[in-house]
Amino acid sequence: MSRQMVRPGGRSARVQAAVHTAVRELEAELGRDGLTVPLIAQRAEVTPSTIYRRWGDLAQLLSDVAVERLRPDTAPQDHGGLASDLTAWAEQFLDEMASPAGRAYIRDALLGDPDGSNAGQCSAYAADQVDVILTRAAGRGEDTPGVETVVDHVVAPLMYRILFRPAGLDAAHARGLVAGLLEGDAAEK
Amino acid sequence: MSRQMVRPGGRSARVQAAVHTAVRELEAELGRDGLTVPLIAQRAEVTPSTIYRRWGDLAQLLSDVAVERLRPDTAPQDHGGLASDLTAWAEQFLDEMASPAGRAYIRDALLGDPDGSNAGQCSAYAADQVDVILTRAAGRGEDTPGVETVVDHVVAPLMYRILFRPAGLDAAHARGLVAGLLEGDAAEK
Repeated sequence: MSRQMVRPGGRSARVQAAVHTAVRELEAELGRDGLTVPLIAQRAEVTPSTIYRRWGDLAQLLSDVAVERLRPDTAPQDHGGLASDLTAWAEQFLDEMASPAGRAYIRDALLGDPDGSNAGQCSAYAADQVDVILTRAAGRGEDTPGVETVVDHVVAPLMYRILFRPAGLDAAHARGLVAGLLEGDAAEK
Repeated sequence: MSRQMVRPGGRSARVQAAVHTAVRELEAELGRDGLTVPLIAQRAEVTPSTIYRRWGDLAQLLSDVAVERLRPDTAPQDHGGLASDLTAWAEQFLDEMASPAGRAYIRDALLGDPDGSNAGQCSAYAADQVDVILTRAAGRGEDTPGVETVVDHVVAPLMYRILFRPAGLDAAHARGLVAGLLEGDAAEK
């Protein structure tokens, strides 16, 4: 996330909120390629040097804004079983991430991220959602794979194909990944 | 790759070779952040406008150079069996892609790639190597998964973790992905 700790409610948090809002507004008005640090600073009513000091450059600011937008705002839906919960989540994850906006945010998050912390945060969002699903299933007494196994077999193939190999990627592929994982697990037991 | 067709031996191919060489030399001398289009043009003995016309901008040029460097220069080694061939290949793929140079090339390839063709080329390199291994195994009479299955279960998790979730990623993880795929396949039969 941002390069320094942010105390909620402090000046630092207000600056961050104003700058993030300015980016979102200006992007809607001018498009992604029209964004510059001076324009964002003017809209957010801060100086450009405040932005450079805090974010380093435009790419790092856009990476922070992208991660913020990629944060899930609800827990995964409860459909009453592991297979249906994970299938529904994988389809929705693919839908959101493979959309033009989703792709743009993933690119932004990766690009302005010299230390990898924003990419790590994106992955943590997905892993946390998966963990909610697995914990709920375990609570029902279902056998569950581990979070990292679901990351390898469902999250990773979807994200890899979105970035590198989009041909043929669709909801059926997402469903197939979940089915393959859960059947494979059953077969191993 | 580059934005226009390149006839081997023609002027276009000579310009591409000179510009790619200039990028590699200057990167070694100045580091990645010291690269500019005017410097590259001077070293390659072309005009900056030649570079802008052909590649659009520095990011797109660096993306093309990165893809060129990510191209495998040998076929996967033959160890006499599918499991050993795929395991050795996965370990080597991880080694190369997770190295500082590998990570930098993957980032460059993704970033200056508005139409996704360079990312697609990176994925095609990996799929082609996997295909060689699978074809060789089929020739020995071994049961083999499909290329896309290996992409989902081996290539994708490695690349996803390199970009998004590097903690704990090591050769043992790569071996485990291959073992899980081949055992899972056996269990389904």
